[in-house]
Amino acid sequence: MSAGVSPVDLSDDADVLVARELGIDTHQEYVIYMHRDCPVCRAEGFTAQARVAVRIAGRSVVATLNVVQTDWLAVHEVGFSTSAWNALRASTGSRVFVSHAPPLESASALRSKIFGHRLDAAQIGAIVADIAAGNYSDAHIAAFLSAGAGGRMDLQETVDMTAAMVAVGDRLSWQRTPIADKHSVGGLPGNRTTPIVVAIAAAAGLTVPKTSSRAITSPAGTADVMETMTRVALDLPAMRRVVESEGACLVWGGAVSLSPADDLLIRVARPLDLDGDAQLVASVLSKKLAAGATHVVIDMPVGPTAKVRSESDANRLRELLEQVASALGLHVGVLLSDGAQPVGRGIGPALEARDVLAVLRGEPGAPVDLRARALALAGSLLEFCGRSRAGEGHDDAAKILDAGLAWNKFQAICEAQGGLREPARAALRHAVLAEHDGFVSAIDNRRLARLAKLAGAPAVAAAGLELHVRLGDSVNPGMPLFTLHAQAPGELAYALSYLASHPVLSISREEKP
Amino acid sequence: MSAGVSPVDLSDDADVLVARELGIDTHQEYVIYMHRDCPVCRAEGFTAQARVAVRIAGRSVVATLNVVQTDWLAVHEVGFSTSAWNALRASTGSRVFVSHAPPLESASALRSKIFGHRLDAAQIGAIVADIAAGNYSDAHIAAFLSAGAGGRMDLQETVDMTAAMVAVGDRLSWQRTPIADKHSVGGLPGNRTTPIVVAIAAAAGLTVPKTSSRAITSPAGTADVMETMTRVALDLPAMRRVVESEGACLVWGGAVSLSPADDLLIRVARPLDLDGDAQLVASVLSKKLAAGATHVVIDMPVGPTAKVRSESDANRLRELLEQVASALGLHVGVLLSDGAQPVGRGIGPALEARDVLAVLRGEPGAPVDLRARALALAGSLLEFCGRSRAGEGHDDAAKILDAGLAWNKFQAICEAQGGLREPARAALRHAVLAEHDGFVSAIDNRRLARLAKLAGAPAVAAAGLELHVRLGDSVNPGMPLFTLHAQAPGELAYALSYLASHPVLSISREEKP
Repeated sequence: MSAGVSPVDLSDDADVLVARELGIDTHQEYVIYMHRDCPVCRAEGFTAQARVAVRIAGRSVVATLNVVQTDWLAVHEVGFSTSAWNALRASTGSRVFVSHAPPLESASALRSKIFGHRLDAAQIGAIVADIAAGNYSDAHIAAFLSAGAGGRMDLQETVDMTAAMVAVGDRLSWQRTPIADKHSVGGLPGNRTTPIVVAIAAAAGLTVPKTSSRAITSPAGTADVMETMTRVALDLPAMRRVVESEGACLVWGGAVSLSPADDLLIRVARPLDLDGDAQLVASVLSKKLAAGATHVVIDMPVGPTAKVRSESDANRLRELLEQVASALGLHVGVLLSDGAQPVGRGIGPALEARDVLAVLRGEPGAPVDLRARALALAGSLLEFCGRSRAGEGHDDAAKILDAGLAWNKFQAICEAQGGLREPARAALRHAVLAEHDGFVSAIDNRRLARLAKLAGAPAVAAAGLELHVRLGDSVNPGMPLFTLHAQAPGELAYALSYLASHPVLSISREEKP
Repeated sequence: MSAGVSPVDLSDDADVLVARELGIDTHQEYVIYMHRDCPVCRAEGFTAQARVAVRIAGRSVVATLNVVQTDWLAVHEVGFSTSAWNALRASTGSRVFVSHAPPLESASALRSKIFGHRLDAAQIGAIVADIAAGNYSDAHIAAFLSAGAGGRMDLQETVDMTAAMVAVGDRLSWQRTPIADKHSVGGLPGNRTTPIVVAIAAAAGLTVPKTSSRAITSPAGTADVMETMTRVALDLPAMRRVVESEGACLVWGGAVSLSPADDLLIRVARPLDLDGDAQLVASVLSKKLAAGATHVVIDMPVGPTAKVRSESDANRLRELLEQVASALGLHVGVLLSDGAQPVGRGIGPALEARDVLAVLRGEPGAPVDLRARALALAGSLLEFCGRSRAGEGHDDAAKILDAGLAWNKFQAICEAQGGLREPARAALRHAVLAEHDGFVSAIDNRRLARLAKLAGAPAVAAAGLELHVRLGDSVNPGMPLFTLHAQAPGELAYALSYLASHPVLSISREEKP
């Protein structure tokens, strides 16, 4: 009875599967959905959460299987998460082949690290390559991060991991040196110095191929802010053209494939609060090395609500950054800064962009703290790269800014990226007023950020809030403390109802200490 | 303009969400699906993979959010994985409330373990409680298992973890002692001694409240095998009634809530090959303690394709099992056995049940290896529990079996569980014949198991295969080597097409060594 039966008959018949886009955002993890009664599921013995190899035409990925037990998905359909759909360049009805996932190249190396052994460069390379190829589930990645946390990655392993993360992505090279870059360890709302620093450094003749990220948990990332003024989703050739013509760019890192493994690690590390120093250092430095940077200034705000909370943490992290960087031929300078309160006035993409423009244009009301931080960073970058004499960087940066050269350069960069436009203004505004007199004794950065997100940021670029006071300011009844900006009444209402039960500013009647 | 806006208006209006069953089997991890444009997603700033608290009426779970970007899910619908749907007892249209997940009780303990510190009983208890409550994502669980692997859980932590796993589930207590139990570390197809051992021990007057698992990666679990002969999905009261009347039961552990955290850990550990000794020991012993056992005999097959691969691994594991057990007042005896080839003839639920029945009924053709293994385990259990004198357990067990007392007891147990029936027979059979003479020089257990699953096992109870030869047997051309059993032509065809390219037996022409 097996006469008529052969693999050929089968593949032409019983197990023909077709692709269906489900648009499920699993945040990069590849997931496919198959019906419980799908003949291939049955025959291969696939169970929920099985790791399977999915092939369409020439492309293939390893995905996690979710089994569907009701009939919104047909027996011969394979549903795709957005990540898997894009990776396979699938289209509706594409023929899909699903089989058991091949054993992971790096399985033994991962297991070896989990069981406490140190890894050599080849083993770390295999793990990072599998992560970049999407062969690891979130659980695999979490197991790897956990195995390496708590000082279980030594200096050499951290160096090897950083190099491996660079190796699996594209890497830019420039026919000149120095190549300058800037990074902020983050955690401070409104700390949007990057566009100003890049404009000043480029105006001074430095080459700055800057890539930035979008917001992940904050109300705005530098890429979100820049996108309110120009195009940021440039591919590598376009990015290179901009840098060649203007000496700098301000683009979204997600559109170029520089250290792609980093995005996958961060996605799993953040919700687990699992980013050990080794991973943080590899993350920051791999992006800079991939962009071709030779000299990097790192802004490290230290404060109770910033990412780095104490001086001692800051010094430990600074030391590791410098050691790993020098092992990889990268010059790094770390600047500690005050992380006590938000920087500038705006919180949210368009509102932060307005602060940036005000500083670049030298408007009278431009936020002084944002200007001061940008000048300090730009100044040290100029000295670091040999464009300014020691001790003169800050003044040189100030001259460039005040002469309008940074503003001209910023406009040129935006034009090269697709044109400069004014940030949008929100349709709805609601001022929150002081109820009694006193002075601003505390600002809850976490709640301010939450409030800006409830108002719609960063998805709604014009949404967020505008802060009118700073720590220590005296206020009188009826004086505006901050203004909420929103596009939809529902979102403004959400922000206000949150505010009703979560005060974000403390107005104290006592005398200032 | 915020006049008319209050939290009350909102909850009655903008954010009304309704439940929709999607039947997506995520293998116990709680997952919900919301549309990108859902007002609550927007307002709360939920992003893909966010951990959210989901509430329906009085019940609440923490789930992972998947964001849907196409319109097969409506903006006000919340789709549910099967696990979350059942946990919340949701029904179509139920009103759903979704909010940010509360901080994990055990987050600091988990982080502490990840960063290399040892945990006390309270910290381990908090972690296990969060796991049992479904508050951990697969990534959290993987991070915890990884942090504890490689000897990073000491003896006391393993004891505390075992006790914590018992504490979060139901625990049976019996007004007598000893309470006997039996466990097999597994990895050997057809090693179905449990029903025979339990029947003999109960016939000898021992109390054996046995719970077993279904197949996860194998062609059959003991619960699948028993289900071909009687009802196995009994709740705790029903299980207790059976044990009170017959002295023993043979039920599915999944229907009773004994050590529920164990199932969640195993789900993540297995695909990652991450089960360290500590987790394996806690897994096995927590189930036995929860069942109220006082004396447990553990069968540990050792062989290249078994779970335990070497004598030294076996001895290390045996020692840890005994130390943790004695710390928790449990008497454990470990028997090492040969794990070189399958046990009995059948592979698949009904076919293995037939082997079990043949041994219990003393049929002439009953598989001698299955009988021998069952007698060895039953004999040591009788001695271990003081029912036999040292050295006489095996003979006592043989007498009970040969006198038909075990068969009578087995029938009584099945009647008490809902009635005894004969295992089904498959509609289709296909004998695979020897092509030339020689002797059986190798059996690929992994491929045999795969073949049985392709034929439909364990989902199709009657499916699988029947092995007619053993290592060293001489064969002649045309002699049947094994017979495939299947219910559907398609499944038989799958098995045959796999077989065409994957031989499972080696027939060697050389003389036997």
